[in-house]
Amino acid sequence: MPTRRIGPRELTRLLGAWPSASAPAYAALAGRIRLLVLDGRLPVGVRLPPERELAASLGVSRTTVSAAFDVLRDGGHAVSRQGSGTWTSLPTAGAPVPTWAPEPAPDGVLDLAHAAPSAPPHLHAAYSAALEDLPRHLPGTGYDYRGLPALRARLAARFTERGLATTAEQVLVTSGALQAVRLGLTLAVGAGDRVVVEQPGYPNGLDVVTDLGGRPVPVPVDPRSGSWDVDSLVAATRQTRPTAAYLVPEFQNPTGSLMPAPVRQLVAALLDRSGTVAVVDETLVELALDDVVTPPPLATFAGRTPVVTVGSASKIAWGGLRVGWLRSDATTVSRLAALRSRQDLASPVLEQLALLHLLDRLDDLREHRVGELRRGRDLLLGLLADQLPDWTVRTPAGGQVLWCGLPTPTSGALAQATADLGVRLTPGSRFAADGGLESWVRLPYTLPPDVLEQAVPLVARAWAAVAGTPAGRRRASTRGPSLDDDAAYVV
Amino acid sequence: MPTRRIGPRELTRLLGAWPSASAPAYAALAGRIRLLVLDGRLPVGVRLPPERELAASLGVSRTTVSAAFDVLRDGGHAVSRQGSGTWTSLPTAGAPVPTWAPEPAPDGVLDLAHAAPSAPPHLHAAYSAALEDLPRHLPGTGYDYRGLPALRARLAARFTERGLATTAEQVLVTSGALQAVRLGLTLAVGAGDRVVVEQPGYPNGLDVVTDLGGRPVPVPVDPRSGSWDVDSLVAATRQTRPTAAYLVPEFQNPTGSLMPAPVRQLVAALLDRSGTVAVVDETLVELALDDVVTPPPLATFAGRTPVVTVGSASKIAWGGLRVGWLRSDATTVSRLAALRSRQDLASPVLEQLALLHLLDRLDDLREHRVGELRRGRDLLLGLLADQLPDWTVRTPAGGQVLWCGLPTPTSGALAQATADLGVRLTPGSRFAADGGLESWVRLPYTLPPDVLEQAVPLVARAWAAVAGTPAGRRRASTRGPSLDDDAAYVV
Repeated sequence: MPTRRIGPRELTRLLGAWPSASAPAYAALAGRIRLLVLDGRLPVGVRLPPERELAASLGVSRTTVSAAFDVLRDGGHAVSRQGSGTWTSLPTAGAPVPTWAPEPAPDGVLDLAHAAPSAPPHLHAAYSAALEDLPRHLPGTGYDYRGLPALRARLAARFTERGLATTAEQVLVTSGALQAVRLGLTLAVGAGDRVVVEQPGYPNGLDVVTDLGGRPVPVPVDPRSGSWDVDSLVAATRQTRPTAAYLVPEFQNPTGSLMPAPVRQLVAALLDRSGTVAVVDETLVELALDDVVTPPPLATFAGRTPVVTVGSASKIAWGGLRVGWLRSDATTVSRLAALRSRQDLASPVLEQLALLHLLDRLDDLREHRVGELRRGRDLLLGLLADQLPDWTVRTPAGGQVLWCGLPTPTSGALAQATADLGVRLTPGSRFAADGGLESWVRLPYTLPPDVLEQAVPLVARAWAAVAGTPAGRRRASTRGPSLDDDAAYVV
Repeated sequence: MPTRRIGPRELTRLLGAWPSASAPAYAALAGRIRLLVLDGRLPVGVRLPPERELAASLGVSRTTVSAAFDVLRDGGHAVSRQGSGTWTSLPTAGAPVPTWAPEPAPDGVLDLAHAAPSAPPHLHAAYSAALEDLPRHLPGTGYDYRGLPALRARLAARFTERGLATTAEQVLVTSGALQAVRLGLTLAVGAGDRVVVEQPGYPNGLDVVTDLGGRPVPVPVDPRSGSWDVDSLVAATRQTRPTAAYLVPEFQNPTGSLMPAPVRQLVAALLDRSGTVAVVDETLVELALDDVVTPPPLATFAGRTPVVTVGSASKIAWGGLRVGWLRSDATTVSRLAALRSRQDLASPVLEQLALLHLLDRLDDLREHRVGELRRGRDLLLGLLADQLPDWTVRTPAGGQVLWCGLPTPTSGALAQATADLGVRLTPGSRFAADGGLESWVRLPYTLPPDVLEQAVPLVARAWAAVAGTPAGRRRASTRGPSLDDDAAYVV
């Protein structure tokens, strides 16, 4: 059964102008909807508009829509039931793996869709040490709803070190950063509420906003200057009265931008004044690759409106260690602890003990990870300059990804073409709240050098094919990136 | 800010008749609301009715309500803000710990509110073995969205052994059983949808139903006969068209009842016919303490409507190992995997590897746990027969708790009285969707013998105090348990 619905106008906008290519209209329409499902812009379980309404909105015949729905159903990308209409779905086991779905890439597929590193050598030792600590926890029930007191104290100390005075009561341990983001947003986001998001922004964060019924209000982050558009934020807080904002001030995903201290102060003041709860995702904060000074946490500029600061061990350590945390005022943390206990009760004890040991070696860990990422970044920049010279890329000072500008709005087609060559890629539109950003693609440099060296030629080959199509030859007009004229930012 | 609201009539019903005792009306009202917040019947963040409306509904003066709200605010059990009204809250750190809240019991407090065992001796070895398996997973990203294939295959094999043919594609690994229950219910429950629940039922499951906006339709489980009231289920499916049902057929929490195979078949058919998605919580299935035959899983009788079967390692192994799972048809599992990936991405790798090793020693584990629980049950039954002879208790054939009938509807007052003696207890009303069951209290026998021996005399002392009050002396009329006449079930 569908869990939510999309109207004919909204779907028409998401579809954009689909290729009037060789394929018949129904096949093109089906292909385009399939792509939206696969790259996550149309989540699974969304009820599609009635055929007649969609046909009217698209200016095609109802037969075309009806035939497109048949194709989607046959491929497992839609399901219909009498009385409930037709909703999006994903094919079950055995069917081709979508480019964006909760599945690991199958063997042989090069996964450039995720920016997730392999584990550092320190991890095994941390688990071993944790296992020695475990026995004194075994007589208990194993449920520590806010997280182990020692871990909360350690996380609080790290915030304090970074200039944000924090006590253990202000910290909640979570099942990874995404759960913490969701909890923070749940505080303030109900159906129809406006939520400030970054454009481009972190796809999983955008998904949470829409899952909660929030309506994203995109505030641009300029990939060229790395600047948050403060004027746009001023207008957004004034005009839309957002209840929450989701921000990634450190090495923003995907642009790699670092928000300067004065901008943090300004943003915090703006949000406080409009009563907008800020959820600040610091997942990437330890990943400064160049000699930049990371400003104090945005929450140091908090006023009376709650700021929820989210962190995680998944980037500095490993995603397979599923521990994140959040930090706010003690009252807000108590409320979030109660909410969280109704979702999955508590975090695993051993994972928390392992994190505690990892935090004791934070400097080593950071040095290891930063060295690895710096090498990956420089390698990937070199490969792109060499093999994809018409792409424009700014060198990010931190984080894990390059945000690459294409000369034409064809990243959806590119993702499709690389998929055929065994490379999974996330198109730019996944990073947009409103389905734009087709002229961008995100490439992670978290992968081992040999994988990057293997992948880029395949991406280049796919790009050559896309660039040879009519859409690929058409130059970007208004929406495409305009970095070409700024040599400083072109690799 | 409040996340939902309660109307004056609903709150009046929840409040019931509060003692017209010595305390002034405003203090009694505040005390009663505080109790509702502490035992979870009024969740944190619920907006209370406007003072005037509540006063009218209760038939008291507005001053009384206003003064009661002041008391609640002073104690940290309510918060008010201009324009947002007054909503329930919990006092922050330093304040007294509530009887039901996401907090571990402080040192020195005997926790009879949770039924969660300590870890078995096998656990450490399982983690050690898992740590040896870990290195081959470390080069990956650590995200296996559906769960490690080997673990899914092992869980599928266990279902198949139990008579429910299952493939690995039909299994999703989750962050504990509660997340799995929530996912399953999310499939079918939106705001205002009716959901069949058991009365009495598992409180955390009931919370999930209301969190999702569902309206619980209670179907009684008779604590005396251990029978599910099938007539009531027939009426419920006919009259309310429930979209989902939440059931615990094995050693039902809190009654310990085991649903017989013919009833499973009947229940499955009824739910299938009404298109009601069944979420079947098998958390306690391995905990048969007496020589009873556990019938095949309810899902073996499934029709075309999805049945989601939920399991967990927290009872047979340990709650601090936070791995659960769900099983359904492959299409439903794909949808739930997509939903879950948007909540907390995936489960920790090491935890999953440890569970795999524990499942290899399932027979040993079960023998250990069952022996421990059997001893605990028999000890607790003996202590109660001796020290609380006017309570009525049926000997459950499995599970972890006794569901004890009191001679008067005073379990809220009892929980309050035991709290003063350092014993945390969950009153019967926590197990009711509609705030009844005041004549019942649940006692777990998961605790070590010395704790049970220490706790029962304190409960008896609290009970003596409560039984001495007017409310305690008044015999139960319609709502109280009527087991007194059935000697076979009285310990």
